[in-house]
Parts: sequence; structure tokens; C-alpha cells
Amino acid sequence: MSSLIRRVVIVGGTHGNELTGIYLVKKFQKYPHLLHRKSLECATLLANPKAIAANRRYIDRDLNRCFANGDLANPALTSYEDRRAKKIAAQLGPKSQPNADVIIDLHSTTANMGLTILPSSKDPVNLRLAAYLSTLNPLVRICCGVQCNQDAPMLRSLSPLGCTIEVGAIAQGVLNADYLQQTEQLVHAILDYLDAMNQGKVLSAPSSLNVYQVMSSVDYPRDSSGELQAVIHPSLQFKDYEPLSDGEPMFLKFTGESIPYRGENTVYPIFINEAAYYEKKIAMTLTSKQQLSLEPVS
Amino acid sequence: MSSLIRRVVIVGGTHGNELTGIYLVKKFQKYPHLLHRKSLECATLLANPKAIAANRRYIDRDLNRCFANGDLANPALTSYEDRRAKKIAAQLGPKSQPNADVIIDLHSTTANMGLTILPSSKDPVNLRLAAYLSTLNPLVRICCGVQCNQDAPMLRSLSPLGCTIEVGAIAQGVLNADYLQQTEQLVHAILDYLDAMNQGKVLSAPSSLNVYQVMSSVDYPRDSSGELQAVIHPSLQFKDYEPLSDGEPMFLKFTGESIPYRGENTVYPIFINEAAYYEKKIAMTLTSKQQLSLEPVS
Repeated sequence: MSSLIRRVVIVGGTHGNELTGIYLVKKFQKYPHLLHRKSLECATLLANPKAIAANRRYIDRDLNRCFANGDLANPALTSYEDRRAKKIAAQLGPKSQPNADVIIDLHSTTANMGLTILPSSKDPVNLRLAAYLSTLNPLVRICCGVQCNQDAPMLRSLSPLGCTIEVGAIAQGVLNADYLQQTEQLVHAILDYLDAMNQGKVLSAPSSLNVYQVMSSVDYPRDSSGELQAVIHPSLQFKDYEPLSDGEPMFLKFTGESIPYRGENTVYPIFINEAAYYEKKIAMTLTSKQQLSLEPVS
Repeated sequence: MSSLIRRVVIVGGTHGNELTGIYLVKKFQKYPHLLHRKSLECATLLANPKAIAANRRYIDRDLNRCFANGDLANPALTSYEDRRAKKIAAQLGPKSQPNADVIIDLHSTTANMGLTILPSSKDPVNLRLAAYLSTLNPLVRICCGVQCNQDAPMLRSLSPLGCTIEVGAIAQGVLNADYLQQTEQLVHAILDYLDAMNQGKVLSAPSSLNVYQVMSSVDYPRDSSGELQAVIHPSLQFKDYEPLSDGEPMFLKFTGESIPYRGENTVYPIFINEAAYYEKKIAMTLTSKQQLSLEPVS
């Protein structure tokens, strides 16, 4: 039997222009009874208030890359987001012994990623929860980052349990009613699952699940001064999680020529044409599709 | 016979996070032969370089609201965008006797507005050109703003001839290959049309056209502190230019209730859920659909 989940924290506004999480957290703050569950306490957090007020991803630096252990311990890092990260880590962490048992961090993306669950670790509790969620809505997909553990620099890494939820395609600075409702349903499903688990019940979930494992990222073709030379190919735009095989078009140059994907293995690109990743030099992230067998609940 | 068009200016980056126009202008600057036409000179302009570098709509103030005559003449207005507007007006204007015969200002929107032409005035040259463009691509629609004349505060108002092109749905900070190609095709079609007109040829166009005339705008329902209480209703999201009649759903409150449109006349909403308009208190703009007969070419 897993140990009990006592404290769940739902986070919005880690990026200040991703309105889905911000408005859901505001709704939960206004109607706290929505989060009441018998066996657990549920708190909310708006992670980056200055960026939310400015309707920008961040003020000085991407907050969701500020949670590496070394950075949290580095007193020389004093940007607005570095200071916020340290404050949040003191509140929800420390990573070695978190105050929050489960952290759910709500994000949106301009890529067509539906309802993507990025578990904070491959802990069996996270994976069984993800498998359960995938039965509720066909848009749910499970993706493990390169660092699917507490070494990651993301806010979610403050606790081994929980996930980031990436919802899209949604433009920055925009609320989409459908995705808002579906994200809220996921949050409720997570709380219900954990509440049932605390009470020794296991909500039924498949015994295996498909996981998209991040392998690498691909930048846009650029010239020597860093200027883009191509865009996402029209046949790949909005095709997140669909297979891409050797020779299939990946980019379209401004001069009209296609640039194909080259690789022995079929990949499943995600974060295709995410607005915030142009500056990170990421046109898309390549994943492999894996089937995981889930450990039976002990 | 209309007077000759000697100088066309193609503008991108009036808003620094609308990449379609920015990258098209950069392409034209790199390959200027693309703009060569027998009877006219074609120049390009990136209107808001600081906002482009920052990947933001504007630095201090929306540049595309800085071109009212009073503001251009007001020495007390010294924000970055006010100074840019005065510089651009000196270059392309003055409104009373423009240096640019035709201005084409390239924008994008998070609303699902396809390829929308907003003529700078109802000059017959603009309307015949718009009618011609509407025959080339079913996504082309013609919309006249409340101030469809040189009193408007938009950059396009520096000349009576020309238009804004609004392309979407595209997220801010994102390039979409399909829309990039279709916008470029529109620019070429405009230049071809004007070049033919200069040479006494009239490219065939229908003798009437549908125009969506802006009537008013509608804000989101807000509470007393200005916080949103509702979002665009899912049944209206991405339904720009579709009819909306009395009693049909317009907004969805965070608490789950629908708010219907109330009005005697059927309207055609546009700019539905435009990211940049939340701060302008515009959830959508209501238009009426009108059929205009075009004056025969004299």
C-alpha cells in the first residue's frame, strides 16, 4: 500500500501568459469547496504573479527552469524568477522532503498536444494515475521528459508525485472554454483518484500504458546569424504525437524547398511550433512511443 | 481612369509578435526581385523594430493606434511608439499628401479570421481590388472598420489606398506555413492587380461584394474589480464571420451558465477571442453583412 497523500498543491501561472491554469486556480480560490476531498487537503498557488500581471511568460527568466538543485542553492541568482523559485521551494519543497505530497502544475501550449500529462517521476503512483486519466478522455497522452525525476529544473520536480498538465493548441494570452473545462475535469479526476487511493480503493486503470519518451529536440534551420530559414512544414503543423518517418517533410524553407526528417526510427514529435520555444531553439521535441506494464498495486 | 500607382509600401511588424508580416517583409528584403513590377516601385518597412526584437505587441503603447492626426501633431506624446509613428508618418505620409500611394499592413490574429482585408477607405480602387482578391481564395473576406477612412488611428490610414491584412487563427509569436504562403500570394495578387491597372488593364472582378461592416464591440462579462467572469462560449469559438442571432450562446461563465447574445438583428462576430484585445476590453467585434455594388471602372 502506498503511503497516504495528505497535501496536494495545484499551481497555475508558472508562465504568466498561459491563462488556462491561471483562471482555473483563480476559480478554485474563489470556490474552495470544489477542491474539498475527504482524505486530503488541497492548496493552490499562482506561481509568477508579476508575469501574470504583465501577461508575459516571465519577467527575467523562465521560472519553470529555475528549480535545479544547484540554482536553488545558489545565492548569486537573484532575478525575479530565481527569487520566486526559492520562495516556492521553501513553501512546497524541499525536494528531499517536500511539504507538498503531490504538485499539479497547469500549463498550456500553442502546440496541438491535447491534454498531455508529464509525470514528475516514474513512481508507480504517478504511472497508475496517468493510466487512469488516459481512460477518461481520448485527448490524454502521457509524456516523460528527458529528466523524468527530481533533478529536473521544473517546478513539478519539488515533489516526486504529481505532474505538469500541458493543454493545447491554445494561443498565449487566450482562454479556451473547451480546454478550460477539460483541464478542470482532469484536476477533479486526479483528486478523486488520490482520495480513493487514500481510502484503500483503487480506481480501475489499464495494466499497461503508452508513454511518449522524450529523446531530443530539433531546432529550426537557421542562417549563420541565427535567423530562421524555414518554418514547420504544413503537413507537420498541429500533428503532435503522430508518427514521423525517414524522408517525410519536417520543415519548409522560405524559398519553397521542403526539408525531410532523417532518421532510422519513426519518431513522434511534440511541442511542434510552441511559441515560447523559438528562443529556446526548439522547433519540436522528438519522442519514442513505449508501452509500459504497470506494477500491480501491492 | 484612376491616377497611377507609383509607390507601394508593404509593412510588417506594426505589432512585434505577429510573425507572418515580419517574416514576409524580411523575405522581400532578402529577395527584392519578388516585388519587381513593371509600372510601380515597391518598398518594405518593419514598423516596430524594438517590439519585434522583444517579441511583444508593443513596448509602451499599441503602435497601430498612434496615427490619429491629433496624436501625430502632439509634441507631448513621446513614448517609443509615438516617436515611431511620427517617423513613419514623415516617411509614408503626410495623410494630406502621402508619399506612399498604397500601404499594405500585414497583421495576424488569434481569431479565426482567415484572410481578412480591411480596406483603408471605401475608395472604389480599394473595393474593386478587394473584390478581385475575394475571387482568388475562399478564405478572403472584406471588413470595413468603424473608421474606414484616414481619420482612423491605424498605420494604414496614412494613405487612402491600401489595406490591412489580418490572417488567422495564428498564435502570437508563431509562424504558420500555410498562412505565410497564402498571405504572400495575396501580396503578389495586389501588386499584379495594381500593375495591370497602371497599364490600363482591369483584372476581372465581380460587380458586387460582401462587406462586413463593423458596428460595435462587446467586452467580456467582468466583476466589479474588472476580473473576467466568463469566456467565449465553446459554440462561438473560432466561428468568426458566422451568423449569431438573438438567444444564441455568446459567453460561458466560469460557474457554468451560458450568456446568450441579445439583439434584434443577426450579427457576424469577428476578432473572437483575439489575445491582444483582452486588455482593450474587446471579446469580439460585431459586424453586419452588406452587399456593395461596385462602380464600373470609368
